[in-house]
Amino acid sequence: MTTANRRIVLAARPHGEPNASHFRLEEARMPVPKAGEVLLANRYLSLDPYMRGRMSAAKSYAEPVAIGDTMVGATVAEVLASDHPGFDVGDMVVGFGGWQEFTTSDGRGLRKLDPAAAPVTTALGILGMPGMTAYAGLRNIGRPKAGETVAVAAATGPVGSLVGQIAKRRGARAVGIAGGPEKCAYLRETLGFDAAIDHRADDFPDALAAACPDGIDVYFENVGGAVFDAVLPLLNSFARVPVCGLVSGYNATELPPGPDRVPVLMRAILTKRLHLEGFIVWDYAAQEQDFLDEVGSWLREGLIVHREDIVDGLENAPEAFAGLLKGRNFGKLLVRIG
Amino acid sequence: MTTANRRIVLAARPHGEPNASHFRLEEARMPVPKAGEVLLANRYLSLDPYMRGRMSAAKSYAEPVAIGDTMVGATVAEVLASDHPGFDVGDMVVGFGGWQEFTTSDGRGLRKLDPAAAPVTTALGILGMPGMTAYAGLRNIGRPKAGETVAVAAATGPVGSLVGQIAKRRGARAVGIAGGPEKCAYLRETLGFDAAIDHRADDFPDALAAACPDGIDVYFENVGGAVFDAVLPLLNSFARVPVCGLVSGYNATELPPGPDRVPVLMRAILTKRLHLEGFIVWDYAAQEQDFLDEVGSWLREGLIVHREDIVDGLENAPEAFAGLLKGRNFGKLLVRIG
Repeated sequence: MTTANRRIVLAARPHGEPNASHFRLEEARMPVPKAGEVLLANRYLSLDPYMRGRMSAAKSYAEPVAIGDTMVGATVAEVLASDHPGFDVGDMVVGFGGWQEFTTSDGRGLRKLDPAAAPVTTALGILGMPGMTAYAGLRNIGRPKAGETVAVAAATGPVGSLVGQIAKRRGARAVGIAGGPEKCAYLRETLGFDAAIDHRADDFPDALAAACPDGIDVYFENVGGAVFDAVLPLLNSFARVPVCGLVSGYNATELPPGPDRVPVLMRAILTKRLHLEGFIVWDYAAQEQDFLDEVGSWLREGLIVHREDIVDGLENAPEAFAGLLKGRNFGKLLVRIG
Repeated sequence: MTTANRRIVLAARPHGEPNASHFRLEEARMPVPKAGEVLLANRYLSLDPYMRGRMSAAKSYAEPVAIGDTMVGATVAEVLASDHPGFDVGDMVVGFGGWQEFTTSDGRGLRKLDPAAAPVTTALGILGMPGMTAYAGLRNIGRPKAGETVAVAAATGPVGSLVGQIAKRRGARAVGIAGGPEKCAYLRETLGFDAAIDHRADDFPDALAAACPDGIDVYFENVGGAVFDAVLPLLNSFARVPVCGLVSGYNATELPPGPDRVPVLMRAILTKRLHLEGFIVWDYAAQEQDFLDEVGSWLREGLIVHREDIVDGLENAPEAFAGLLKGRNFGKLLVRIG
């Protein structure tokens, strides 16, 4: 067994797009579990857009990562040693191990996984935080009704792909927005979306309007920017907009040029009686078991589909993460470690 | 009894501020009630900011008034003749009689008033659409809790003044925003707001921040513009923003200069998990009796205060309405007719 813990720390705060210079791969001492703790070997690291926020000092719903600290992130890990009654050596767990090979834990925030019930990587995707984000946003804010139209961007990603599939299962029409024809074909042919629109196409706003002849009743907002601009005129009266991310703007270094369109948005909210509401998944932590039961059973029964995009090697996490913010991944982005 | 019906029609659609040229006072024939109808003499006309929207052709939640048509508006009227079993001559009713002296009705949309229970003019203000707007927006969207801070602009107006007083009765802290020291003194001394801030003062954003040391949990949005800009940074996580009006922008002929601050607003919605929701009062028509019961009893018991600003003469309605959009009224603006 190695005696070093390779980890990636935040080296500098990016202004704009993150690149290799903002991360540093270090060899640290192996962590030593204390009494009552487990020693964990991280096997998979989840890369998610929210991490861009943690790299910035700007105020948000969570504290930024300090310069020199290990980047945060959810992980699937194997228990290497245990002094905790709830975990045995060899158990697979999901937790928040960060961008590193090894970590210790007193058990808080760990959930034991059953590899027979579902592949362990699903605990970072369709049965993890991204899936729960889709579930909670639709259940609590979007509330799609049968016959309504639900639109979502980054639709081949782990949140968007489940948003569309839950919408379908609730009897709604699912319209996905994604980058490029390959992803759009996947949405239509594999995930069963009713329509898929390429936001990189020149006629994107018109194509989206044509795909939503009855308007949009739920827009699950995870990207912002030009997609939101195209969606806003299509929103129906009483439309709901759960806002869980704005990834198109995470690397922005300045605001778009004028005019200031806040009055346009506020007027739409007023005259169409829109409901916009921000949320983060843990606001609905009490619903996690419902989510695991319902979406887990769909997955086991083959009623829903998920896709993973796995990158090998912790050292490749920074580049993969930079690509995630540009939509280069195709499916849930994971890093296989060790 | 006169045989002419004086009425004010929409003469032209304003670009910017409405003025006398956009209205025309006409003498029309007295309306003649049909079988089953009542003939009404309008005694008071309510002037409300939403009317600016009806003067424009832009799409909204209601159809615009056509050029040459009588301006719409709520009225308190006296029954002059009745062929309707529910109404007797001399009854006072509230309805939607428009900017004119006389009208007929088949009874739909009319509600009989009891002058002994409350002055009939209250049916256009604190016990009418404006009061119901305050009540419904707080009950369904704002949901203030004891100890929270509720902020509202146009706070001496019929909506804002009740928003603050309901907030106080729910155990919340009420912060009012109004134009000028006289209105601010009234908010503090007569209505019992905890703080009142003059939005015309140079230090307005700083003064508002100082008046909200624990941030803002509910912002009842009826003005938009610079007030919203000052409120946004003060909103707490999980703040609720019922949006029922944006009067500061109703006369705008172009958008404010850039940059485009939509990303700032969306980021605030995301990171602070804000809930913005537009509504119009009739979305909650089913709650009208609750409103009349609760707010009516407070009014009868002297637990809440209201203020009216009454202009004499239908011919003065256009100028009074133009002043309303600039905050010149002090209290619920009414026109006494005939």
